[in-house]
Amino acid sequence: MSEAYSVTETTRLKRLAKRAAYDHETVHAILDEATLCHVSLTVDGRPRVLPTLQWRVGTRLYIHGARKNGLFQAMRDGAEAAVAVTLMDGWVLARSAFHHSVNYRSVMAIGHFVEITDPDEQMAAYQAMMDKIHPGRWDQVRWPNEIELKQTAVMAMDLAEVSAKVRNGPPVDDAEDYALPVWAGVVPLKIERGEPIVDTTPAPII
Amino acid sequence: MSEAYSVTETTRLKRLAKRAAYDHETVHAILDEATLCHVSLTVDGRPRVLPTLQWRVGTRLYIHGARKNGLFQAMRDGAEAAVAVTLMDGWVLARSAFHHSVNYRSVMAIGHFVEITDPDEQMAAYQAMMDKIHPGRWDQVRWPNEIELKQTAVMAMDLAEVSAKVRNGPPVDDAEDYALPVWAGVVPLKIERGEPIVDTTPAPII
Repeated sequence: MSEAYSVTETTRLKRLAKRAAYDHETVHAILDEATLCHVSLTVDGRPRVLPTLQWRVGTRLYIHGARKNGLFQAMRDGAEAAVAVTLMDGWVLARSAFHHSVNYRSVMAIGHFVEITDPDEQMAAYQAMMDKIHPGRWDQVRWPNEIELKQTAVMAMDLAEVSAKVRNGPPVDDAEDYALPVWAGVVPLKIERGEPIVDTTPAPII
Repeated sequence: MSEAYSVTETTRLKRLAKRAAYDHETVHAILDEATLCHVSLTVDGRPRVLPTLQWRVGTRLYIHGARKNGLFQAMRDGAEAAVAVTLMDGWVLARSAFHHSVNYRSVMAIGHFVEITDPDEQMAAYQAMMDKIHPGRWDQVRWPNEIELKQTAVMAMDLAEVSAKVRNGPPVDDAEDYALPVWAGVVPLKIERGEPIVDTTPAPII
Protein backbone atom coordinates (compact mmCIF):
# COMPACT_ATOMS: atom_id res chain seq x y z
CA MET A 1 0.00 0.00 0.00
CA SER A 2 1.42 3.37 -0.98
CA GLU A 3 1.23 6.54 1.10
CA ALA A 4 -2.19 8.10 1.34
CA TYR A 5 -3.82 11.49 1.80
CA SER A 6 -5.70 12.03 5.05
CA VAL A 7 -9.47 11.84 4.82
CA THR A 8 -11.35 14.89 6.05
CA GLU A 9 -15.05 15.60 6.47
CA THR A 10 -14.96 17.39 3.11
CA THR A 11 -13.07 14.76 1.13
CA ARG A 12 -14.74 11.69 2.63
CA LEU A 13 -17.12 10.31 0.02
CA LYS A 14 -20.61 10.18 1.43
CA ARG A 15 -22.16 8.27 -1.46
CA LEU A 16 -20.76 5.20 -3.21
CA ALA A 17 -17.86 5.19 -0.76
CA LYS A 18 -16.53 1.96 -2.30
CA ARG A 19 -15.48 4.02 -5.32
CA ALA A 20 -13.21 6.24 -3.22
CA ALA A 21 -9.41 6.12 -3.03
CA TYR A 22 -7.02 8.32 -1.14
CA ASP A 23 -3.67 6.65 -1.83
CA HIS A 24 -0.96 8.60 -3.63
CA GLU A 25 -0.63 5.99 -6.35
CA THR A 26 -4.25 6.22 -7.50
CA VAL A 27 -4.53 10.00 -7.10
CA HIS A 28 -1.24 10.78 -8.83
CA ALA A 29 -1.88 8.41 -11.75
CA ILE A 30 -5.12 10.25 -12.56
CA LEU A 31 -3.51 13.68 -12.26
CA ASP A 32 -0.64 12.57 -14.50
CA GLU A 33 -2.79 11.01 -17.22
CA ALA A 34 -5.21 13.94 -17.37
CA THR A 35 -4.09 17.36 -18.52
CA LEU A 36 -7.23 19.41 -18.00
CA CYS A 37 -8.63 20.47 -14.67
CA HIS A 38 -11.52 22.66 -13.57
CA VAL A 39 -10.77 25.11 -10.76
CA SER A 40 -13.70 26.41 -8.77
CA LEU A 41 -13.77 29.40 -6.46
CA THR A 42 -15.84 32.36 -5.40
CA VAL A 43 -15.08 35.77 -6.89
CA ASP A 44 -17.02 38.80 -5.70
CA GLY A 45 -19.54 36.50 -4.06
CA ARG A 46 -20.30 34.47 -7.19
CA PRO A 47 -19.10 30.95 -8.07
CA ARG A 48 -16.65 30.73 -10.94
CA VAL A 49 -15.04 27.80 -12.69
CA LEU A 50 -11.89 27.90 -14.78
CA PRO A 51 -10.81 25.12 -17.18
CA THR A 52 -7.03 25.05 -17.33
CA LEU A 53 -4.05 22.72 -17.58
CA GLN A 54 -2.76 21.06 -14.43
CA TRP A 55 0.42 19.19 -13.73
CA ARG A 56 2.04 17.66 -10.69
CA VAL A 57 5.48 17.58 -9.12
CA GLY A 58 5.47 15.35 -6.04
CA THR A 59 2.44 16.34 -3.98
CA ARG A 60 2.27 19.81 -5.52
CA LEU A 61 -0.36 20.62 -8.13
CA TYR A 62 0.43 23.43 -10.56
CA ILE A 63 -1.68 25.64 -12.80
CA HIS A 64 -0.66 28.75 -14.70
CA GLY A 65 -2.13 31.63 -16.63
CA ALA A 66 -2.17 35.35 -17.19
CA ARG A 67 -0.91 37.14 -14.10
CA LYS A 68 -3.90 39.49 -14.19
CA ASN A 69 -6.50 36.70 -14.34
CA GLY A 70 -9.26 37.64 -11.90
CA LEU A 71 -9.47 34.15 -10.44
CA PHE A 72 -5.74 34.16 -9.68
CA GLN A 73 -6.15 37.55 -8.04
CA ALA A 74 -8.91 36.11 -5.83
CA MET A 75 -6.52 33.27 -4.87
CA ARG A 76 -3.84 35.81 -3.90
CA ASP A 77 -6.49 37.51 -1.78
CA GLY A 78 -7.01 34.25 0.08
CA ALA A 79 -9.88 32.55 -1.76
CA GLU A 80 -9.91 28.80 -1.32
CA ALA A 81 -10.17 26.68 -4.48
CA ALA A 82 -11.58 23.29 -5.41
CA VAL A 83 -10.02 21.40 -8.30
CA ALA A 84 -11.60 18.56 -10.27
CA VAL A 85 -9.74 16.34 -12.71
CA THR A 86 -11.98 13.96 -14.62
CA LEU A 87 -11.20 11.17 -17.09
CA MET A 88 -14.23 9.66 -18.85
CA ASP A 89 -13.40 6.04 -19.65
CA GLY A 90 -16.67 4.80 -21.07
CA TRP A 91 -20.42 4.83 -21.36
CA VAL A 92 -22.09 2.20 -19.23
CA LEU A 93 -25.25 1.17 -21.07
CA ALA A 94 -27.64 -0.68 -18.80
CA ARG A 95 -30.96 -2.39 -19.48
CA SER A 96 -32.81 0.24 -17.46
CA ALA A 97 -32.48 3.99 -17.96
CA PHE A 98 -31.81 4.40 -14.23
CA HIS A 99 -28.70 2.22 -14.15
CA HIS A 100 -26.95 3.89 -17.05
CA SER A 101 -23.65 5.26 -15.86
CA VAL A 102 -20.18 6.39 -16.81
CA ASN A 103 -16.88 4.69 -16.16
CA TYR A 104 -14.54 7.37 -14.95
CA ARG A 105 -11.54 8.21 -12.83
CA SER A 106 -11.64 11.56 -11.07
CA VAL A 107 -9.73 13.52 -8.46
CA MET A 108 -11.05 16.25 -6.23
CA ALA A 109 -8.72 18.55 -4.30
CA ILE A 110 -9.55 21.50 -2.11
CA GLY A 111 -7.14 24.03 -0.67
CA HIS A 112 -5.25 27.22 -1.35
CA PHE A 113 -3.14 28.00 -4.39
CA VAL A 114 -0.11 30.17 -3.72
CA GLU A 115 1.86 32.01 -6.37
CA ILE A 116 5.32 30.66 -7.14
CA THR A 117 7.72 33.59 -7.13
CA ASP A 118 11.06 31.76 -6.97
CA PRO A 119 12.45 31.92 -10.54
CA ASP A 120 14.05 28.47 -10.27
CA GLU A 121 10.78 26.84 -9.22
CA GLN A 122 8.96 28.77 -11.96
CA MET A 123 11.32 27.41 -14.59
CA ALA A 124 11.19 23.89 -13.13
CA ALA A 125 7.39 24.08 -13.18
CA TYR A 126 7.34 25.15 -16.84
CA GLN A 127 9.73 22.35 -17.70
CA ALA A 128 7.47 19.83 -15.98
CA MET A 129 4.46 21.25 -17.82
CA MET A 130 6.11 21.14 -21.24
CA ASP A 131 7.43 17.63 -20.74
CA LYS A 132 3.95 16.48 -19.72
CA ILE A 133 2.40 17.90 -22.91
CA HIS A 134 5.13 16.41 -25.07
CA PRO A 135 8.03 14.52 -23.45
CA GLY A 136 11.40 16.08 -24.22
CA ARG A 137 9.93 19.26 -25.66
CA TRP A 138 11.48 21.55 -23.06
CA ASP A 139 14.93 20.82 -24.56
CA GLN A 140 13.74 21.89 -28.02
CA VAL A 141 11.82 25.11 -27.52
CA ARG A 142 12.85 28.64 -26.64
CA TRP A 143 12.55 29.04 -22.90
CA PRO A 144 10.52 31.82 -21.28
CA ASN A 145 12.30 35.15 -21.06
CA GLU A 146 11.99 37.68 -18.27
CA ILE A 147 9.05 39.54 -19.82
CA GLU A 148 7.10 36.32 -20.39
CA LEU A 149 7.77 35.14 -16.83
CA LYS A 150 6.36 38.43 -15.58
CA GLN A 151 3.20 38.14 -17.69
CA THR A 152 2.44 34.65 -16.47
CA ALA A 153 1.63 33.43 -12.99
CA VAL A 154 2.42 29.92 -11.78
CA MET A 155 0.18 28.88 -8.91
CA ALA A 156 0.69 25.79 -6.74
CA MET A 157 -1.50 23.89 -4.32
CA ASP A 158 0.08 21.51 -1.84
CA LEU A 159 -2.19 18.49 -2.05
CA ALA A 160 -3.70 17.68 1.35
CA GLU A 161 -7.50 17.39 1.12
CA VAL A 162 -7.68 15.09 -1.87
CA SER A 163 -9.80 12.16 -2.96
CA ALA A 164 -10.06 9.99 -6.04
CA LYS A 165 -13.21 8.30 -7.27
CA VAL A 166 -13.22 5.44 -9.76
CA ARG A 167 -15.99 3.50 -11.48
CA ASN A 168 -15.23 0.69 -13.86
CA GLY A 169 -16.75 -2.51 -15.15
CA PRO A 170 -20.10 -3.46 -16.64
CA PRO A 171 -23.54 -2.07 -15.80
CA VAL A 172 -25.27 -3.32 -12.68
CA ASP A 173 -28.96 -3.76 -13.38
CA ASP A 174 -31.83 -4.84 -11.20
CA ALA A 175 -32.07 -8.64 -11.20
CA GLU A 176 -35.41 -8.73 -13.01
CA ASP A 177 -34.08 -6.55 -15.87
CA TYR A 178 -31.33 -8.92 -17.04
CA ALA A 179 -33.90 -10.85 -19.07
CA LEU A 180 -34.86 -7.76 -21.09
CA PRO A 181 -33.88 -7.88 -24.78
CA VAL A 182 -31.67 -4.78 -24.55
CA TRP A 183 -28.01 -4.57 -25.52
CA ALA A 184 -26.04 -3.79 -22.36
CA GLY A 185 -22.35 -3.22 -21.85
CA VAL A 186 -19.63 -0.61 -21.98
CA VAL A 187 -18.63 1.67 -24.85
CA PRO A 188 -15.02 2.66 -24.07
CA LEU A 189 -14.00 6.30 -24.54
CA LYS A 190 -10.46 7.46 -25.10
CA ILE A 191 -8.79 10.73 -25.99
CA GLU A 192 -6.83 10.02 -29.17
CA ARG A 193 -4.09 12.15 -30.69
CA GLY A 194 -4.59 12.66 -34.40
CA GLU A 195 -2.04 13.21 -37.16
CA PRO A 196 0.04 16.31 -36.29
CA ILE A 197 -0.58 19.33 -38.54
CA VAL A 198 2.68 21.18 -39.16
CA ASP A 199 2.51 24.98 -38.99
CA THR A 200 3.54 26.30 -42.38
CA THR A 201 3.02 29.96 -41.53
CA PRO A 202 5.89 31.85 -43.15
CA ALA A 203 8.14 33.71 -40.74
CA PRO A 204 6.80 37.25 -40.49
CA ILE A 205 9.09 39.97 -41.72
CA ILE A 206 10.53 41.63 -38.64
CA MET B 1 -26.67 35.72 -37.26
CA SER B 2 -28.57 33.55 -34.80
CA GLU B 3 -30.07 34.73 -31.51
CA ALA B 4 -27.55 35.51 -28.81
CA TYR B 5 -27.28 35.55 -25.04
CA SER B 6 -26.93 38.94 -23.41
CA VAL B 7 -23.47 39.88 -22.25
CA THR B 8 -23.12 40.77 -18.57
CA GLU B 9 -20.19 42.06 -16.54
CA THR B 10 -19.57 38.47 -15.39
CA THR B 11 -19.78 36.79 -18.79
CA ARG B 12 -17.95 39.45 -20.79
CA LEU B 13 -14.50 38.07 -21.60
CA LYS B 14 -11.89 40.43 -20.26
CA ARG B 15 -8.91 38.72 -21.85
CA LEU B 16 -8.62 37.48 -25.44
CA ALA B 17 -12.07 38.87 -26.14
CA LYS B 18 -11.74 37.92 -29.81
CA ARG B 19 -12.19 34.30 -28.72
CA ALA B 20 -15.60 34.99 -27.21
CA ALA B 21 -19.00 34.11 -28.65
CA TYR B 22 -22.46 34.61 -27.24
CA ASP B 23 -24.70 33.41 -30.07
CA HIS B 24 -27.02 30.46 -29.49
CA GLU B 25 -25.58 28.51 -32.40
CA THR B 26 -22.02 28.46 -31.05
CA VAL B 27 -23.01 27.95 -27.41
CA HIS B 28 -25.53 25.19 -28.12
CA ALA B 29 -23.24 23.29 -30.50
CA ILE B 30 -20.59 23.02 -27.75
CA LEU B 31 -23.13 21.94 -25.12
CA ASP B 32 -24.55 19.33 -27.48
CA GLU B 33 -21.22 17.85 -28.55
CA ALA B 34 -19.86 17.65 -25.00
CA THR B 35 -21.43 15.39 -22.41
CA LEU B 36 -19.43 16.26 -19.32
CA CYS B 37 -19.70 19.48 -17.36
CA HIS B 38 -18.17 20.77 -14.14
CA VAL B 39 -20.55 22.51 -11.76
CA SER B 40 -19.05 24.86 -9.21
CA LEU B 41 -20.71 26.25 -6.12
CA THR B 42 -20.11 27.07 -2.49
CA VAL B 43 -21.24 24.58 0.16
CA ASP B 44 -20.83 25.46 3.84
CA GLY B 45 -18.51 28.30 2.87
CA ARG B 46 -16.14 26.16 0.82
CA PRO B 47 -15.87 25.92 -2.97
CA ARG B 48 -16.92 22.61 -4.47
CA VAL B 49 -16.86 21.29 -8.01
CA LEU B 50 -18.93 18.42 -9.37
CA PRO B 51 -18.19 16.60 -12.65
CA THR B 52 -21.47 15.38 -14.10
CA LEU B 53 -23.37 14.87 -17.36
CA GLN B 54 -25.15 17.82 -18.90
CA TRP B 55 -27.67 18.03 -21.68
CA ARG B 56 -29.78 20.75 -23.21
CA VAL B 57 -33.36 21.23 -24.33
CA GLY B 58 -33.83 24.66 -25.93
CA THR B 59 -32.16 27.18 -23.64
CA ARG B 60 -32.47 24.92 -20.59
CA LEU B 61 -29.43 23.06 -19.28
CA TYR B 62 -30.07 19.86 -17.31
CA ILE B 63 -28.05 17.84 -14.84
CA HIS B 64 -29.17 15.00 -12.61
CA GLY B 65 -28.00 12.90 -9.71
CA ALA B 66 -28.86 11.46 -6.34
CA ARG B 67 -31.61 13.49 -4.70
CA LYS B 68 -29.61 13.67 -1.46
CA ASN B 69 -26.44 14.99 -3.12
CA GLY B 70 -25.14 17.80 -0.91
CA LEU B 71 -24.47 20.11 -3.85
CA PHE B 72 -28.05 19.74 -5.08
CA GLN B 73 -29.26 20.49 -1.57
CA ALA B 74 -27.19 23.68 -1.60
CA MET B 75 -28.82 24.61 -4.93
CA ARG B 76 -32.28 24.08 -3.44
CA ASP B 77 -31.20 26.35 -0.60
CA GLY B 78 -30.46 29.06 -3.16
CA ALA B 79 -26.76 28.64 -3.94
CA GLU B 80 -25.80 30.02 -7.33
CA ALA B 81 -23.81 27.73 -9.64
CA ALA B 82 -21.25 28.15 -12.38
CA VAL B 83 -21.03 25.51 -15.09
CA ALA B 84 -18.10 24.88 -17.42
CA VAL B 85 -18.21 22.66 -20.49
CA THR B 86 -14.85 22.15 -22.15
CA LEU B 87 -13.84 20.39 -25.35
CA MET B 88 -10.09 20.02 -25.90
CA ASP B 89 -9.47 19.96 -29.64
CA GLY B 90 -5.70 19.93 -29.84
CA TRP B 91 -2.28 20.75 -28.46
CA VAL B 92 -0.80 23.86 -29.99
CA LEU B 93 2.96 23.35 -30.06
CA ALA B 94 4.80 26.61 -30.57
CA ARG B 95 8.46 27.39 -31.06
CA SER B 96 8.61 29.11 -27.69
CA ALA B 97 7.42 27.60 -24.41
CA PHE B 98 5.37 30.74 -23.76
CA HIS B 99 3.21 30.46 -26.88
CA HIS B 100 2.21 26.84 -26.37
CA SER B 101 -1.53 26.63 -26.13
CA VAL B 102 -4.58 24.46 -26.48
CA ASN B 103 -7.26 24.53 -29.15
CA TYR B 104 -10.54 24.29 -27.33
CA ARG B 105 -14.22 25.15 -27.35
CA SER B 106 -15.73 25.96 -23.98
CA VAL B 107 -18.93 27.29 -22.50
CA MET B 108 -19.37 29.03 -19.18
CA ALA B 109 -22.80 29.56 -17.62
CA ILE B 110 -23.70 31.07 -14.29
CA GLY B 111 -27.09 31.04 -12.61
CA HIS B 112 -29.47 29.04 -10.46
CA PHE B 113 -30.47 25.42 -10.93
CA VAL B 114 -34.02 24.61 -9.93
CA GLU B 115 -35.35 21.13 -9.34
CA ILE B 116 -37.76 19.73 -11.92
CA THR B 117 -40.74 18.30 -10.09
CA ASP B 118 -43.21 17.95 -12.97
CA PRO B 119 -43.22 14.21 -13.84
CA ASP B 120 -43.70 14.87 -17.55
CA GLU B 121 -40.72 17.20 -17.72
CA GLN B 122 -38.67 14.72 -15.69
CA MET B 123 -39.42 11.94 -18.16
CA ALA B 124 -38.81 14.24 -21.14
CA ALA B 125 -35.49 15.24 -19.60
CA TYR B 126 -34.42 11.61 -19.12
CA GLN B 127 -35.42 10.85 -22.69
CA ALA B 128 -33.30 13.73 -23.95
CA MET B 129 -30.37 12.54 -21.80
CA MET B 130 -30.59 8.94 -23.00
CA ASP B 131 -30.92 9.90 -26.63
CA LYS B 132 -27.88 12.16 -26.28
CA ILE B 133 -25.75 9.32 -24.89
CA HIS B 134 -26.96 6.91 -27.56
CA PRO B 135 -29.56 8.05 -30.12
CA GLY B 136 -32.72 5.98 -29.99
CA ARG B 137 -31.82 4.25 -26.74
CA TRP B 138 -34.83 5.60 -24.83
CA ASP B 139 -37.11 3.40 -26.94
CA GLN B 140 -35.11 0.29 -26.03
CA VAL B 141 -34.53 0.47 -22.27
CA ARG B 142 -36.77 0.09 -19.27
CA TRP B 143 -37.98 3.55 -18.26
CA PRO B 144 -37.57 4.90 -14.73
CA ASN B 145 -40.20 3.74 -12.28
CA GLU B 146 -41.66 5.77 -9.44
CA ILE B 147 -39.06 4.72 -6.88
CA GLU B 148 -36.19 5.58 -9.24
CA LEU B 149 -37.74 8.94 -10.07
CA LYS B 150 -37.87 9.69 -6.35
CA GLN B 151 -34.23 8.72 -5.78
CA THR B 152 -32.98 10.96 -8.55
CA ALA B 153 -33.16 14.71 -8.88
CA VAL B 154 -33.28 16.50 -12.24
CA MET B 155 -32.03 20.06 -11.97
CA ALA B 156 -32.37 22.70 -14.69
CA MET B 157 -30.74 26.07 -15.31
CA ASP B 158 -32.34 28.51 -17.72
CA LEU B 159 -29.37 29.75 -19.71
CA ALA B 160 -29.03 33.51 -19.44
CA GLU B 161 -25.50 34.51 -18.36
CA VAL B 162 -23.58 32.38 -20.85
CA SER B 163 -20.46 32.74 -22.92
CA ALA B 164 -18.49 30.53 -25.27
CA LYS B 165 -14.77 30.73 -25.87
CA VAL B 166 -13.02 29.19 -28.84
CA ARG B 167 -9.39 28.92 -29.88
CA ASN B 168 -8.38 27.20 -33.08
CA GLY B 169 -5.65 27.28 -35.67
CA PRO B 170 -1.86 27.13 -35.56
CA PRO B 171 0.48 28.54 -32.92
CA VAL B 172 1.24 32.23 -33.00
CA ASP B 173 4.90 32.78 -32.18
CA ASP B 174 6.96 35.89 -31.83
CA ALA B 175 8.28 36.94 -35.24
CA GLU B 176 11.93 36.27 -34.36
CA ASP B 177 11.16 32.70 -33.25
CA TYR B 178 9.85 31.42 -36.59
CA ALA B 179 13.40 30.80 -37.71
CA LEU B 180 14.09 28.41 -34.82
CA PRO B 181 14.59 24.77 -35.82
CA VAL B 182 11.63 23.53 -33.74
CA TRP B 183 8.66 21.51 -34.99
CA ALA B 184 5.57 23.64 -34.53
CA GLY B 185 1.95 22.92 -35.26
CA VAL B 186 -1.16 21.32 -33.86
CA VAL B 187 -1.69 17.81 -32.53
CA PRO B 188 -5.45 17.21 -32.81
CA LEU B 189 -7.25 15.57 -29.90
CA LYS B 190 -10.52 13.73 -30.18
CA ILE B 191 -12.63 11.58 -27.89
CA GLU B 192 -13.01 8.27 -29.70
CA ARG B 193 -15.53 5.53 -28.96
CA GLY B 194 -13.87 2.10 -28.81
CA GLU B 195 -15.31 -1.32 -29.62
CA PRO B 196 -18.36 -1.91 -27.39
CA ILE B 197 -17.88 -4.57 -24.70
CA VAL B 198 -21.08 -6.56 -24.25
CA ASP B 199 -22.10 -7.33 -20.68
CA THR B 200 -22.16 -11.11 -20.30
CA THR B 201 -23.07 -11.09 -16.62
CA PRO B 202 -25.58 -13.91 -16.15
CA ALA B 203 -28.99 -12.81 -14.91
CA PRO B 204 -28.91 -13.09 -11.13
CA ILE B 205 -31.29 -15.60 -9.60
CA ILE B 206 -34.18 -13.63 -8.15
